[in-house]
Amino acid sequence: MPIPTPLSGVVPPVITPLTPKGEVDTASVRRLTEHLITAGVHGLFLLGSSGEAAYLTDAQRLTALESAVDAAAGRVPVLAGIIDTTMARVLDRAADAVRAGADALVATAPFYTRTHPVEIADHFRRVREGAGLPLFAYDIPVAVHTKLPREVVLDLAADGTLAGLKDSSGDEGSLRRLLVALRRRVPGFTVLTGSELTVDGALLAGADGVVPGLGNVDAHGYVRLYASARAGDWAAARAEQDRLAALFDLTDAGDPALMGGSSSALGAFKAAAHLLGLIDCPATAAPQVPLDAAAVARVRDRLTEAGLL
Amino acid sequence: MPIPTPLSGVVPPVITPLTPKGEVDTASVRRLTEHLITAGVHGLFLLGSSGEAAYLTDAQRLTALESAVDAAAGRVPVLAGIIDTTMARVLDRAADAVRAGADALVATAPFYTRTHPVEIADHFRRVREGAGLPLFAYDIPVAVHTKLPREVVLDLAADGTLAGLKDSSGDEGSLRRLLVALRRRVPGFTVLTGSELTVDGALLAGADGVVPGLGNVDAHGYVRLYASARAGDWAAARAEQDRLAALFDLTDAGDPALMGGSSSALGAFKAAAHLLGLIDCPATAAPQVPLDAAAVARVRDRLTEAGLL
Amino acid sequence: MPIPTPLSGVVPPVITPLTPKGEVDTASVRRLTEHLITAGVHGLFLLGSSGEAAYLTDAQRLTALESAVDAAAGRVPVLAGIIDTTMARVLDRAADAVRAGADALVATAPFYTRTHPVEIADHFRRVREGAGLPLFAYDIPVAVHTKLPREVVLDLAADGTLAGLKDSSGDEGSLRRLLVALRRRVPGFTVLTGSELTVDGALLAGADGVVPGLGNVDAHGYVRLYASARAGDWAAARAEQDRLAALFDLTDAGDPALMGGSSSALGAFKAAAHLLGLIDCPATAAPQVPLDAAAVARVRDRLTEAGLL
Amino acid sequence: MPIPTPLSGVVPPVITPLTPKGEVDTASVRRLTEHLITAGVHGLFLLGSSGEAAYLTDAQRLTALESAVDAAAGRVPVLAGIIDTTMARVLDRAADAVRAGADALVATAPFYTRTHPVEIADHFRRVREGAGLPLFAYDIPVAVHTKLPREVVLDLAADGTLAGLKDSSGDEGSLRRLLVALRRRVPGFTVLTGSELTVDGALLAGADGVVPGLGNVDAHGYVRLYASARAGDWAAARAEQDRLAALFDLTDAGDPALMGGSSSALGAFKAAAHLLGLIDCPATAAPQVPLDAAAVARVRDRLTEAGLL
Repeated sequence: MPIPTPLSGVVPPVITPLTPKGEVDTASVRRLTEHLITAGVHGLFLLGSSGEAAYLTDAQRLTALESAVDAAAGRVPVLAGIIDTTMARVLDRAADAVRAGADALVATAPFYTRTHPVEIADHFRRVREGAGLPLFAYDIPVAVHTKLPREVVLDLAADGTLAGLKDSSGDEGSLRRLLVALRRRVPGFTVLTGSELTVDGALLAGADGVVPGLGNVDAHGYVRLYASARAGDWAAARAEQDRLAALFDLTDAGDPALMGGSSSALGAFKAAAHLLGLIDCPATAAPQVPLDAAAVARVRDRLTEAGLL
Repeated sequence: MPIPTPLSGVVPPVITPLTPKGEVDTASVRRLTEHLITAGVHGLFLLGSSGEAAYLTDAQRLTALESAVDAAAGRVPVLAGIIDTTMARVLDRAADAVRAGADALVATAPFYTRTHPVEIADHFRRVREGAGLPLFAYDIPVAVHTKLPREVVLDLAADGTLAGLKDSSGDEGSLRRLLVALRRRVPGFTVLTGSELTVDGALLAGADGVVPGLGNVDAHGYVRLYASARAGDWAAARAEQDRLAALFDLTDAGDPALMGGSSSALGAFKAAAHLLGLIDCPATAAPQVPLDAAAVARVRDRLTEAGLL
Repeated sequence: MPIPTPLSGVVPPVITPLTPKGEVDTASVRRLTEHLITAGVHGLFLLGSSGEAAYLTDAQRLTALESAVDAAAGRVPVLAGIIDTTMARVLDRAADAVRAGADALVATAPFYTRTHPVEIADHFRRVREGAGLPLFAYDIPVAVHTKLPREVVLDLAADGTLAGLKDSSGDEGSLRRLLVALRRRVPGFTVLTGSELTVDGALLAGADGVVPGLGNVDAHGYVRLYASARAGDWAAARAEQDRLAALFDLTDAGDPALMGGSSSALGAFKAAAHLLGLIDCPATAAPQVPLDAAAVARVRDRLTEAGLL
Repeated sequence: MPIPTPLSGVVPPVITPLTPKGEVDTASVRRLTEHLITAGVHGLFLLGSSGEAAYLTDAQRLTALESAVDAAAGRVPVLAGIIDTTMARVLDRAADAVRAGADALVATAPFYTRTHPVEIADHFRRVREGAGLPLFAYDIPVAVHTKLPREVVLDLAADGTLAGLKDSSGDEGSLRRLLVALRRRVPGFTVLTGSELTVDGALLAGADGVVPGLGNVDAHGYVRLYASARAGDWAAARAEQDRLAALFDLTDAGDPALMGGSSSALGAFKAAAHLLGLIDCPATAAPQVPLDAAAVARVRDRLTEAGLL
C-alpha cells in the first residue's frame, strides 16, 4: 500500500516476540499486530531497535516481518527497519524487506565505521536508488553514534531521497529547527518522533506522529494522546503523556548491576506485553540478561498503577 | 529579595557586555538590565554560560553582578552563577555573589575532575550549607560532561538543598520524568528549562519557566511565549516559538572553520544586542574568535527576518 | 591449521581489493596474500576494519575470505573477522568463515545496541560455543563504542573462551595492566596490538605481536620491527617504528572537508598498495569518498619519503 | 631557576597533603617534597590533577605551592599548574604561581566552554605572553574534553609559545607521531608523558620524561625505571614498569558503587603516602568520598606486594 504523505499518527516500533528457545513466535507476532491495529495505530514499524533487530538473524527478521505484513493485511502501512552497517549490506536487508511485503523502509546512518556528512548523504541516496521503496531516515545516535546533520536531512528531503524521518536523537531543539525549516522547504515530508516521553510537545511543534516503544505496552494511550493533540486539546494530551511518562518507569525494572539499560527496557516491554496477554513468552534475545522475578514484579506494579492490569 | 516559590517565567541568562579592551562595560550592563526588565522578564540570571562566566576573572564577575543587581533595584530577583570546578572554589564564588547582592545562586556539578552521583549530591549539600542563599542546580552536560541523575535532583529537592533546577541538558525525556516525579514528591520546586527552542513544549509539560540565551536578543518574544502558554493559548505559544527558533539561526553566523560553535553563538547574541542598540560593543572575551563582517551581516539578516530591525 | 599458542608476530588486517565496479577482486586478493606471506608475516587477518568488513555483503566477505585462504595454502594461519551486531548474527558470520576455511575467528563486543559487561561475556561464550573455532576478541571502542573491561577479558581468557585478544583500543595503559595480569593467570593467551604506531613499546611490554593496517603498505617494515624486538635490539625496533610512524602520515591524505578520517585512511592504504603494484585498483567501497588526485599525490610522496617507491 | 632544555626525567605531580579539617598541611608538603628530591626526581609538578588543583581554593593553591618551592630550595625545578577555565582566569592563577616562585607553568586547553583549535592556540599564546614564565601545555582530555591537536602543539612549539608538553591524553599513537615530527622541526622541545603505565615504551619512543601520579607512592621505582631506560637497559626498564603497573592496582581500592574512579585513585595515592609515612593525614578534599577501612587495607596489600611496606 502507498505510504500517506505525510504519514501521521502512532506507528509503534513493534517488539519481536520470541519462543522460549529464541525463535520468532509468529503466532504472537500476529496477535500483537492485531491488537495494535485494533487499538487504532496508524502504521507499524517492524525490525527497529525495539524490535531487537540487532539481535535477530536475517532469517528471523524475514519471518517476523512476513508475519506482521500478513497479519496487517493492508489495513495500515508496515515500515521495515533495514538495519545494517553500510550501504551494500543495507541493500541486502532492503531486498528481504521488499520480498516480505513492506510498504516502506527505515535505514540509519552508517555505523561501526566512522563516517562523514558527505558519506551519510551518499549512503541514503544509494539505498533509496537501490531499494525501490519509500525510505525513512532513522536518526538514532545512541546506536550509531552519529547525529544526522540537519542540513543533510533537509537536502535529502528536498531532493526526494527521503520520505520521512524517525527522530530518536532526543535532541528536541534540533528537531524544532528542522521542523521550522521543513515547513518552508519541503511541506509534505514526514517527521515522526521516537521520543515517547515528549510526544505532546513534539506534536505541538508540528511533528506528524510518534514511534513509541512504550506503544507496545499501551497503544491505546498513545492513540488517545495523538487524538487529543490533533483536536487541539493540549491539556488532555499533556495528562495522557504524564500518565505514560510515569508508566515508562517500568523500563528501569532491571537491576543495573546485572544488565544494561537497553536490556532492561526491552525486557520490560516484553514482560509487560506478556503480563497483558499480548504475547506468549517474554523472552528477549541472547545475550541480553532476562529480567528476574523481582524485576517482573516491578513491571507489574507499573502496569497496575497505570490502570492497565 | 526572596525568591518566589516556584520562580516562574522568563529569566534570561544575561550576556556580559565588554568594552573593546575586554573590561566589563557597566553602563551597558545597566542598559541591558533595564531593557530586559522593561520587556517583562521575571528574573535575571547573571554569570551563566551565556554570561561568559568561564571567560571572566573573579573581579570581572563581581563587577558585572554588582552592576546588574544595582540596576535591577529589587524589581526582579537576580540569580548568580557560581561556576567553578568543585565545592571549595564554588563557595568562594558564592561569597562574592552574596557580597554583590544576588538573591539566589546557581551551581553546576563538579567539573574538570571526574565525579560520581554520591559526590555530586554531597557537593550541592555543602555548597548550600556554606553559601547562605537559595541554590539552583545547573544541569549542563555540554559544559561539565555529567548529566545530573534524576534521583539526585529528586533527593536534593526533597531535602531542601535545592530550590530549583536550571535544565540545560537538552534531555527533554528525562526532564519529563523528573517533572512527573516532582509533582508527586516536591510540588513547590522550581524547574526552568534552558532549552530555548522547545519552551512551548516544556511549559506544556509543567516547567515553571525558561532561561533563554536568545532572550538577550528578543526578550519580548519569550515574554509573549510565556504569557500565551500561561493563558493556555498553545497555538500562539507555538507560533511564537517557531519564530524564535528561526531567529536562533543567528547562532550559526560564525564560520565553523574559524571558530567553535560556542563562540559563534555567544558572538551572535552580542552582535545582535549591539545591532539592536542594547549594548555598546559586541566584543566577546578572548580567546574566542570575533565574528567577522560577513557573520555580523548574517546576524543582521536574521534580525530583519524576525522583525526586530 | 591449528593456531600457535600464543600466536606471535605480524598479522596484517588484510585490505579487501575491489574492482572498479565494487566487486571483490579475487586476483588481487591472491596477489596481496602472496606478497604478505613472502614478506614474512606470521598470519593474516581477513575481514577486519581495514578489510572494510562493514562495507561488504556476506557474499563479498565469503569471496574475499575463500580467496585468501586458498592463496595462503596453509603457510600461515588465517583469522577471519565475524563482525556483526550481536551473537546470533555473529554466529551466521562464523558459519560462513568456517565454511571458507578460516583457522580462527575474531569477534567484537555487541554493537549498535547498548550493552553491559555481563552481556559482553555471555556474548563471547555463546559465540565460542557455537562457532567451533578458536576465538579472538577484537577490542575496538572506536567502532563498537564499548571498551572491553579488563576483568572480562581475564575471565574469558582463564576459562578458555578466548584464545587471544586483538587490542585496537589505543588504551596502552590498560593493555599493560592486562599483560601483567595475564602473565600471572593465563600465560599462553595471545595478545596482539592493533596500535600500529607503538608496536615497539607494545612488544617491550610483552605483547605477542601486531595487527597493523599499515602492514598492507609496508609488511617488510613490520616484519623487521618484530624481528628486532624479538632479538632485543630495541634501538633498531624504535628506528623502524619511527620510520613507519612517519609513513603513517599517508592516512591524512584525504581532505577532512570532503571525507571522514576512516575513509581517508582506508583510501590511503589502498592507494598505496595500488601504487606499489600490490593490487589492481585502489577503489574503496561506497559510500566512502574516493581520494582525489591531490590526495593520491600525497600518498605517493609519503611512499617516496619512506623509500618504498 | 631556569628550566633545562629539554626537561628530562621524573617529575611527579605532587599530591597536596591536607589536614583532617581540609587545610593544606604545609609540614607534610615539605616532608613529601624532601622525600621526592631525595629519591632522585628531576622536577616537581605542583597543582596538577593529582594535586587536587580542581578542589583547592586559590589561597590553598598558593599555600601548597609556596611550601613546595621553599622546601625544594632550587634543587629541582618546580612547575606549577595554573588550572582554570580560560585565558583571563588562567592568567590570574599564573600571577599567583609567579608570586610563589614557580619555575614554569602548566596550562590546559580551555574547559567548561566548548572551544576550537584556533581558540586553543590563541589561548596558549596569550597565556604565555601574559605570564612571563616558560609554559607547558597539559593535554588531558579526560578533564577538559578536548584533545590538543598535534598540529597545534607543533605550531606552538615551533614559535616558542610552549616549552614543552605534558601528555596525559593516553593516546600513545598520536604521541608517537608528535615525537617523530618534533624531532624534525623543534628538537629541544620537552615531552613528558603522564601515562605512568607505559613509561618504558614512551622513553623508548623518545619522550624526555614522565609525570607519574604513582610517583608519589614509589618515586624510587620511577627513578630506577628512568635510569634503566637512559642506560639502554630496556629489560630492566620493562621489569620495573611491570612492577609499577601491578602496584597501580591500588587505584582501584575504592568501591565503584560508593565513589568515582578519580576519588578512588587520589584517595589511594594519599592512603599509600600516609601508610608509607610521607604525609600525616590521608584526607582528600571534599566532596570526594574518603576510602573506607577495607579500601585502605587493599592499598596496604598492594604496597606489601610491591615491597614498599
